[in-house]
Amino acid sequence: MSPFEEIRNFLLVETPDSWVSAALTHRSELMIDHANCEKKAASNAMNLLYRYVDKRELLIKLTQLAREELLHFEQVLQLMDSAKVEYTHLSPGRYAAGLHKNIRTHEPSKLIDSLIVGAIVEARSCERFHKLAKKIAEPLSAFYKKLFSAEARHFQDYLHLANLYSEDDNEVPKRVAFFLELESELILQPDAQFRFLSGAPVGN
Amino acid sequence: MSPFEEIRNFLLVETPDSWVSAALTHRSELMIDHANCEKKAASNAMNLLYRYVDKRELLIKLTQLAREELLHFEQVLQLMDSAKVEYTHLSPGRYAAGLHKNIRTHEPSKLIDSLIVGAIVEARSCERFHKLAKKIAEPLSAFYKKLFSAEARHFQDYLHLANLYSEDDNEVPKRVAFFLELESELILQPDAQFRFLSGAPVGN
Repeated sequence: MSPFEEIRNFLLVETPDSWVSAALTHRSELMIDHANCEKKAASNAMNLLYRYVDKRELLIKLTQLAREELLHFEQVLQLMDSAKVEYTHLSPGRYAAGLHKNIRTHEPSKLIDSLIVGAIVEARSCERFHKLAKKIAEPLSAFYKKLFSAEARHFQDYLHLANLYSEDDNEVPKRVAFFLELESELILQPDAQFRFLSGAPVGN
Repeated sequence: MSPFEEIRNFLLVETPDSWVSAALTHRSELMIDHANCEKKAASNAMNLLYRYVDKRELLIKLTQLAREELLHFEQVLQLMDSAKVEYTHLSPGRYAAGLHKNIRTHEPSKLIDSLIVGAIVEARSCERFHKLAKKIAEPLSAFYKKLFSAEARHFQDYLHLANLYSEDDNEVPKRVAFFLELESELILQPDAQFRFLSGAPVGN
């Protein structure tokens, strides 16, 4: 199974066509929020580096992941420069908070849920880059194709870590199903605010 | 002037010999706290990436800096593995907090002070790697020599950014002098807790 098929099978729903159409007419928000998402991906990974110093494989994988997200951040900045898109403060979308607030608060559950949410965000980002690459003009199209394989690898890394550290064979499948159900609503429900991971555009 | 001379001239005081001696007999704390300092250096840079999205040169330089600090973090982890040093939670030393609490709270002063403090931490780290490399056994000696040039470059980057964004010619020299005075006390005053940036060991 290709990474794309793996991710398409993992997620419950596809990004609506209406979101892709909205992306083509919200170029600035798309690029600014993408930059913010790369930063957030790096700092979420770093938070895990602080919390779990005893977990060697997590430390090694996530320090590499954080470095790659920061590289992507720099690449988005350079594309914004070329496209003359000004980097202004943009409020975050509802997606990440919507998932994060459902992370269990006690350990070791908090670790497992954090890793699963990390995997889902990477999977959805991947799926969106794949759809956008087909529709958006260059140079963004080539860029999103390049990002796809890195983010697919991050998805696999996060899921691998969740399975590695979970001590109950049923836990990961159960929590993945829970978060994917939640994630589907966030993707399909109307969302008045256009963001990289926003829901179905209102009025389309 | 070599980077080493530049840094030696910049700082007001040298690391006491008693600290270097203590480092040789506090190998675990040294390596664990060094790992923590690399993480903190990356997340401090990232905090600036969040706050100053309109400052292009800062964004580009500090995203590269953050990536390098995370690479160093990973390299320290690998050395800890080889040295069989367990990565446990270790409380931070007083040094960084001692400088940070004197950062002015309003903009644009907050930016300038944050960049100056960043430069000072890099300079002191550099100066310590230089001294340690002469005394400590391999493989740490070679590793610290390698780190030296990266951290010297980070020192120059932070100072360059402070000068770039300051709108008053007197501000940076004045604030550098203020923070260096403070930093000297942190380095020379007795410090019961051994850390990578701790003061003069007590009882030596």
